Amino acid sequence: MHIESLFSERMKTMRPSEIRELLKLTQNPEIISFAGGLPNPEAFPVDELVEITREILEKHGKMALQYGPTEGIRGFREVLASRCAKDGMDATSENVIITTGSQQGLDMIGRVFLDPGDTIIVELPTYLGAINAFRAYEVNFEGVPLDEEGMKTDLLEEKIEELKKKGITPKFIYVVPTFQNPAGVVMSESRRRKLIDIANEHDLIVIEDDPYGKLIYEGKPAKPIKALDDEGRVIYLSTFSKILAPGFRLAWIVASEELIRKLTIAKQALDLCSNTFVQFVAKEFIEGGYLDLHIMKIIEMYRPKRDKMIEAIKNYFPSDTIFYKPRGGMFAWVTIPGNIDTEEMFLDAIKEKVAYIHGKAFYVDGGGANSMRLNFSYSSEELIDEGMRRLGKVIEKKLKETNS
Amino acid sequence: MHIESLFSERMKTMRPSEIRELLKLTQNPEIISFAGGLPNPEAFPVDELVEITREILEKHGKMALQYGPTEGIRGFREVLASRCAKDGMDATSENVIITTGSQQGLDMIGRVFLDPGDTIIVELPTYLGAINAFRAYEVNFEGVPLDEEGMKTDLLEEKIEELKKKGITPKFIYVVPTFQNPAGVVMSESRRRKLIDIANEHDLIVIEDDPYGKLIYEGKPAKPIKALDDEGRVIYLSTFSKILAPGFRLAWIVASEELIRKLTIAKQALDLCSNTFVQFVAKEFIEGGYLDLHIMKIIEMYRPKRDKMIEAIKNYFPSDTIFYKPRGGMFAWVTIPGNIDTEEMFLDAIKEKVAYIHGKAFYVDGGGANSMRLNFSYSSEELIDEGMRRLGKVIEKKLKETNS
Repeated sequence: MHIESLFSERMKTMRPSEIRELLKLTQNPEIISFAGGLPNPEAFPVDELVEITREILEKHGKMALQYGPTEGIRGFREVLASRCAKDGMDATSENVIITTGSQQGLDMIGRVFLDPGDTIIVELPTYLGAINAFRAYEVNFEGVPLDEEGMKTDLLEEKIEELKKKGITPKFIYVVPTFQNPAGVVMSESRRRKLIDIANEHDLIVIEDDPYGKLIYEGKPAKPIKALDDEGRVIYLSTFSKILAPGFRLAWIVASEELIRKLTIAKQALDLCSNTFVQFVAKEFIEGGYLDLHIMKIIEMYRPKRDKMIEAIKNYFPSDTIFYKPRGGMFAWVTIPGNIDTEEMFLDAIKEKVAYIHGKAFYVDGGGANSMRLNFSYSSEELIDEGMRRLGKVIEKKLKETNS
Repeated sequence: MHIESLFSERMKTMRPSEIRELLKLTQNPEIISFAGGLPNPEAFPVDELVEITREILEKHGKMALQYGPTEGIRGFREVLASRCAKDGMDATSENVIITTGSQQGLDMIGRVFLDPGDTIIVELPTYLGAINAFRAYEVNFEGVPLDEEGMKTDLLEEKIEELKKKGITPKFIYVVPTFQNPAGVVMSESRRRKLIDIANEHDLIVIEDDPYGKLIYEGKPAKPIKALDDEGRVIYLSTFSKILAPGFRLAWIVASEELIRKLTIAKQALDLCSNTFVQFVAKEFIEGGYLDLHIMKIIEMYRPKRDKMIEAIKNYFPSDTIFYKPRGGMFAWVTIPGNIDTEEMFLDAIKEKVAYIHGKAFYVDGGGANSMRLNFSYSSEELIDEGMRRLGKVIEKKLKETNS
């Protein structure tokens, strides 16, 4: 049968992600991959989870294996609200909804706000999964560049004015303000305040995606934008994927009660409720005091990996490489001067058994051709050094080719 | 802020489900609820899961806690394909995608096929969660009545012709052919064949939702419609919610390879992948031989509950009550002759501390006013008897009121 003609409009434009195809190439175990956004599996608290899963099944099996409320287990929402309140957010359990990973959170936000043809503003560069989530709602992306202090709020204002002149009001501004994916930077507090001011002035929603905020290798924690929000216009997302286990697909949103109710309606049609069992497990992981210890352990594990990667950039990459030493998170963002196209260079890298994600993948405006995102959480320090050495060679060769 | 004006068109029409609001009333522990679609928690294999979760964490923790492929763990897809092949489907792992509950499966199908204004055909009555999933895609529902042999395929043909005359081609036909929710009936093999013939003739997709097919209390298993499909036009869904644990949010779709690829693209934007950990656990639950034993145990547990409920209908309901004794599944469907509106009667029932779901909830055409769905899997036999006695009194009183 000719099934293609039956596909929805949104799916006609959705092709298999090129990145996904590229990532398939990296599955060869000989390849040192800096491409994914995977936590290091050594960081999974297996022993603690053996203990906790047994306890939950024995004590709460009947509830933990049953359907749960769409918003999530109340006690779990309370625990998360209280953690977010410690970070300065004005949150009770009524402000929290559990999601099946932050990817579902992004999709739910798309579902609640986005109509085909709507415009949303994202950072240049921005998180790939968010582009993917929102693109499914057939929207237009507008990008605002960032620098070492995060999204450039002066350019954001200009962008909004420019759109207004065209009669366009964006639906929301999506940012990853803390240890940004892919750029690694942290939005400064003054810019966070400015962003809130702009959102208040133009009556816009701000989506604050914060998967990495707790993975701090140096400096003080940044205050969430949500903590500066007096008008209920910031929607905050965070996740257990980077601090416990991505396999659990467990994340949460903090927003106004009105919005939580709307998101709940959206989620009910999506998957009824998130996995009840792992909600109980994660709740116990927090309440038993494991989570905070575990975050410290991950930080101690990832900091030297970051250091190794930065050192390797200095050792193996061209001296005029532009890079930023991230104070947290999982990624280094590197820009190679000259006419290199990192997308084109990818196959050369694969031949040398090393992988990354090319910069263009993170730009909604076609930019980023000579940048790349390098993950440092997954590989061992030894492999980071070896992979970066290989990548340095690939770049050197490519530079010679393009200059000749 | 006035956030409502920013909501998408699809969400403006989505209100909190009335059923959800009604179900909240049933949370009082004194209420005997036949309303939900919950498995009996005594049927959860807690001891086996203690063993298996420990084993998975210890042996496969690094993979089971990590992100997994969007389609699902390959070994798990293989196991499911081989089970489906035993049921007569032409399936390999390439024909299987894991979903976060069947609700996500339905949403993915909506996402792949449905544009606003599209028309789909469902049974009268049909599954509430499917109405909810597809309604989010702003479609029109057309209903075709069913009887004790399932959807009336002669009326389906008429409906398709009638739509054709209006220039409407439906996108797909959604059916729950085996132990239908809510009606409890099984579509006969001749109607299944007829349905396939109609789909082939009119080039339509068939969505076969099969959560209850293994919960057989009498008679032979029905051959899945998918097993009769030579042209790759049937999309088959099944789930672990009723045979293992709904809290795991674990289900699967069987479809043509082309469609699995498209569904994978859709799923990637929805939640990246389903919970990896419970995929490993469910795989071991099958391979260790636990699942088939467990299904037998559930059958032995639910059959007497069904018998008790049918007996109670005979004992406590008006003698001219129309009901069907389901040969499997989790629901009895009851129609009370006369002018009773079961939606109106619901609050009377709650006062008497018993709950059900009113028939209209399952009808896309406003029908079903004097019907109700009664779940028999959740409550003990004793409570089934007591609850039905209460409900009988409520009906008797209501009938007197409406006749006076």
